[in-house]
Amino acid sequence: MGTINDNHEPENIFTNTMNPLDPEEFRRQGHIIIDFLADYYQNIENYPVQSQVQPGYLRKRLPESAPYNPESIETILQDVQTDIIPGLTHWQSPNYFAYFPSSGSISGFLGEMLSTGFNVVGFNWIASPAATELENIVMDWLGKMLTLPKSFLFSGGGGGVMQGTTCEAMLCTLTAARDQTLSRIGRESIGKLVVYASDQTHFALKKASQIAGINPMNFRAITTTKSTAFELSPEALRSAILSDVEAGLVPLFLCATVGTTSSTAVDPLGPLCDVAKDYGIWVHVDAAYAGSACICPEFRHFIDGVEGANSFSLNAHKWFFTTLDCCCLWVKDPNALIKALSTDPECLRNKATESKQVVDYKDWQIALSRRFRAMKLWLVLRTYGISNLRNLIRSHVNMAKHFEELIGMDKRFEVMAPRHFAMVCFRVSASAMGKDEKYCSSNELNGKLLESINASGRVYMSHAVIGGVYVIRFAVGATLTNYGHVTMAWKVVQEHADAMLMCGSAICMWGCANRQEWR
Amino acid sequence: MGTINDNHEPENIFTNTMNPLDPEEFRRQGHIIIDFLADYYQNIENYPVQSQVQPGYLRKRLPESAPYNPESIETILQDVQTDIIPGLTHWQSPNYFAYFPSSGSISGFLGEMLSTGFNVVGFNWIASPAATELENIVMDWLGKMLTLPKSFLFSGGGGGVMQGTTCEAMLCTLTAARDQTLSRIGRESIGKLVVYASDQTHFALKKASQIAGINPMNFRAITTTKSTAFELSPEALRSAILSDVEAGLVPLFLCATVGTTSSTAVDPLGPLCDVAKDYGIWVHVDAAYAGSACICPEFRHFIDGVEGANSFSLNAHKWFFTTLDCCCLWVKDPNALIKALSTDPECLRNKATESKQVVDYKDWQIALSRRFRAMKLWLVLRTYGISNLRNLIRSHVNMAKHFEELIGMDKRFEVMAPRHFAMVCFRVSASAMGKDEKYCSSNELNGKLLESINASGRVYMSHAVIGGVYVIRFAVGATLTNYGHVTMAWKVVQEHADAMLMCGSAICMWGCANRQEWR
Repeated sequence: MGTINDNHEPENIFTNTMNPLDPEEFRRQGHIIIDFLADYYQNIENYPVQSQVQPGYLRKRLPESAPYNPESIETILQDVQTDIIPGLTHWQSPNYFAYFPSSGSISGFLGEMLSTGFNVVGFNWIASPAATELENIVMDWLGKMLTLPKSFLFSGGGGGVMQGTTCEAMLCTLTAARDQTLSRIGRESIGKLVVYASDQTHFALKKASQIAGINPMNFRAITTTKSTAFELSPEALRSAILSDVEAGLVPLFLCATVGTTSSTAVDPLGPLCDVAKDYGIWVHVDAAYAGSACICPEFRHFIDGVEGANSFSLNAHKWFFTTLDCCCLWVKDPNALIKALSTDPECLRNKATESKQVVDYKDWQIALSRRFRAMKLWLVLRTYGISNLRNLIRSHVNMAKHFEELIGMDKRFEVMAPRHFAMVCFRVSASAMGKDEKYCSSNELNGKLLESINASGRVYMSHAVIGGVYVIRFAVGATLTNYGHVTMAWKVVQEHADAMLMCGSAICMWGCANRQEWR
Repeated sequence: MGTINDNHEPENIFTNTMNPLDPEEFRRQGHIIIDFLADYYQNIENYPVQSQVQPGYLRKRLPESAPYNPESIETILQDVQTDIIPGLTHWQSPNYFAYFPSSGSISGFLGEMLSTGFNVVGFNWIASPAATELENIVMDWLGKMLTLPKSFLFSGGGGGVMQGTTCEAMLCTLTAARDQTLSRIGRESIGKLVVYASDQTHFALKKASQIAGINPMNFRAITTTKSTAFELSPEALRSAILSDVEAGLVPLFLCATVGTTSSTAVDPLGPLCDVAKDYGIWVHVDAAYAGSACICPEFRHFIDGVEGANSFSLNAHKWFFTTLDCCCLWVKDPNALIKALSTDPECLRNKATESKQVVDYKDWQIALSRRFRAMKLWLVLRTYGISNLRNLIRSHVNMAKHFEELIGMDKRFEVMAPRHFAMVCFRVSASAMGKDEKYCSSNELNGKLLESINASGRVYMSHAVIGGVYVIRFAVGATLTNYGHVTMAWKVVQEHADAMLMCGSAICMWGCANRQEWR
């Protein structure tokens, strides 16, 4: 293959006979990729779940420059198999239990294909009316499935928008809240604005605050404790607000979480919104992970109180079978978003916008350009239907319950936080370590245990530290996972623990700081 | 079909036999969609380019709630054909000449399929090493194709990252510049920071400044004029800076554009960077559209001077055959980005990060989660090769030249700005309107002409107002376009102009304000 340095041009550079969108070639190559991916899913359990490559592995394998001459799709797919797949951590593997799931599905995939195939840029209504209108409709559909208050739906004066990620949803709502408040108290007061969260809130909020120009000194991560299941206490919130107000600061924004990243704790929305209301604070509810569960009547209570919030978001790409990326954000007052984020350039002027009968989503988000994300959520909702979606969610919760029961049968382990959804936080308990704990702390040992489990490639889990305690997180939700995988995952945990916990006391074989001493 | 109100659950809700990622079902449905899209491309010229639907068309056609029971992919595809396609503006149509292109290709599509199929979430290296490393590599490849200074490449201490859009690239670099400056002069000075641009700069910059908390009073859109081809004048920049400095403000950021949205004007990078350097201003070069052309040696001079800039971006989803979204951003000092955007939560701690041998892209962008975008650009670069990519770009430029020549042969029209790339700004000239101009201004008439052209559905163009003059923008770049389409587009323009400009004077039939008078 030629490289960038073969700089001689073909003789007739102005005759271009290649058609990069030739329909028949599209058909031929498209079918090849479908078969490649179907085979990938078929064989996915043969790959180590967590990639086992070392940093820099790929640069050693690929050329330093792009090829000068074309290469065939067959050649490239061979390289995907040989060079890329070993470097993937297989989020779609049924043995993937780390972080939160990235739950793909056939329908999510097909929706993304359609949206990519049409490749429209729906920044405003006129640029592709179907993209905007379908988004309006599916956001109302999903809002109804969650029984969100009507005030969050288009049909009730609010509305929904699909963003890429929760980070963007947080930044947009925070900017809206900020500009609403600054227009009242004056722009020079930006340094006085305060953002509230708990110490369990996703770090995306801190980053969004930074980007939006909030003074980092004015970010309050209110401490939570195990005794209250790591939920944000309304009293603690009020007292933080009071001392800020006394200090002449201006309370701006609260992010409450339904299903925190570390332990899926659920902040009490109702009481928190009541406190926020007293001080005119914008409340955003981040239900990135757990929001999806609330389409089941038995889980809906977790978002009770959402009627007091200003905005609500969940990631359909986490636990709702809609491929990355798809964050669904609902707001009660779209005008607050639009005021902060709208632009009205001459080049995009059009009659539909001027008629005020349409939504121009460019004014609801950071970016101008936007993909046709509604297509994939529409397909997911229709192909599975509410009944199957509920049952899929329930099956994940039940598998997590099953895992929890397995833990309960092995006295060496303990569950470290209430399991509300499909994620279990557990660890080898301090008591299982016996008298040798002085040589290897419980946190260290659990860290080593997780490392050895993941290095096996058989399953993949992740960790968190809550209340100072290191826990292993086991999140069920990969679409291919069934009971057999969960049972096997528990066996893997036990086997690795067996190797570490010998004779009922802690014999740490995994390279802790004090190894020399006790070996 | 059931609706959300059919709330009775199936009897055994805990047995879930459906597998939403069943490989054989994936294969079957995947092939169906490939054929659907291949047929779409085959028939794309049968659809009106700009959608002809009215606001609210889709809500009338779709149910009010999601279905309770599943629906088949065959049913859904029928609805896509009947309900969605009429509401699409067909950006992939060969008769699409509006805004800038959204240039799809087979390889871009296949790359998106692979990335969606794997559905990994590459927020940091460990979460999927191949996603990060391939991005490092293709960003270096493309940087070399553009002959960017080595200081922008990983191999030279800088580096590249794929963002969704230029808006995000602007916000990230602006935030980096802001925090760098504030750490020097104190956070309380945020109100003093000034952002510079020309009145032709994309409005995304103003929005990014707003989001980043820059005082809107401190956004300088420096006036450009036709006499200097709407380029930002270094002298005008210096004088704006001087008066801000005198007023006690702090110059922060300059966005220079290579290929402005309205007329593809090219700001003189070298002289602008020289001015910026004197005041320690961060220079970002926005080459969203025209950057792609700079892989051709004969167009590379348009980014001469980029060595003086801090960051550079182009949208591979515009004119580089890589489907939406894919904005390539290079920075000389990744640490400036990382300082402003990094987060180091416990739950993402890992040895690879601690070794400092890897890139964690979550710290180079707004969001945490990120798709595997490198896959599609890698496929585009390899399947076409540098030679074909250059020739494709050249063929678009030549088609635009051809269109310009056709305009030159019709005395009623004039080209309104220098054509540097593949976009032509033209209009019916004032002289063609003769004595009746008092009844219908040149701007109005050209607006009506464009409206009537687009309403025909045969072609789609857009408009801009530059220097107070309304112009029609004709952007070549849709992948399926060939000379025949360009020639036909010109015939459509002429036919519609014929209907409006009768007897050589302006007889405006299109509903101007004074219609009653002259009918």
